[in-house]
Amino acid sequence: MQTHFIISLLRQRQAGRIIGWIFAHMSFAIPVHRLRETDSLLAFQHPSPAYPVHILIVPKRTYTSLMDVTVEDTAFLADLVETVQSLVRELGLEGKGYRLVVNGGEYQDVKHLHFHLISGVK
Amino acid sequence: MQTHFIISLLRQRQAGRIIGWIFAHMSFAIPVHRLRETDSLLAFQHPSPAYPVHILIVPKRTYTSLMDVTVEDTAFLADLVETVQSLVRELGLEGKGYRLVVNGGEYQDVKHLHFHLISGVK
Repeated sequence: MQTHFIISLLRQRQAGRIIGWIFAHMSFAIPVHRLRETDSLLAFQHPSPAYPVHILIVPKRTYTSLMDVTVEDTAFLADLVETVQSLVRELGLEGKGYRLVVNGGEYQDVKHLHFHLISGVK
Repeated sequence: MQTHFIISLLRQRQAGRIIGWIFAHMSFAIPVHRLRETDSLLAFQHPSPAYPVHILIVPKRTYTSLMDVTVEDTAFLADLVETVQSLVRELGLEGKGYRLVVNGGEYQDVKHLHFHLISGVK
């Protein structure tokens, strides 16, 4: 319930900045089951999954979109790749197939950068 | 024609290693219209686009899939983000929406790592 509340908050454009701040400074308080947590990101099950496997990977830094990521933030980029590799191995997704997706512009609903790791039929 | 030949070659699993070697060592000889080229990657129009905007971003290093990317290869990860940002700006994709996708396991047809930057209806 709390998670759905947060997601509906996230969908409001004006709330993106506040939610970004929460991810950046108060991620410990986000009521999701963490699959992975590093200094730079959180990975957790999508609270309203559209696929059998639907994991969100969210940076702790306040990036509105992929356009805001600074290429100097190699810690986040390295953590992102390592997190995906580790989840793919743990969940045995290589045999099934997997897809990593990031939406931008009009395709991005929640205005805090997030990657989808998905597998299975919608 | 040459490009289609290369793509059909790429689809053959056993050819992946050879094609990877070509991207790594002979990328100058690949007959595509380069949208971007850096030390670590090439970006070019998909020769058989499935979307109005369909760009392939391909590392020069021989990575079979996302699982092979070493997190120490921050040059590639930084170039990838910078290339996407630059193409999104140049093509004005923020207004329309864009999606960056990488497939793995059974979802990956060509066994040389490649990212799709897409926009528009299939």
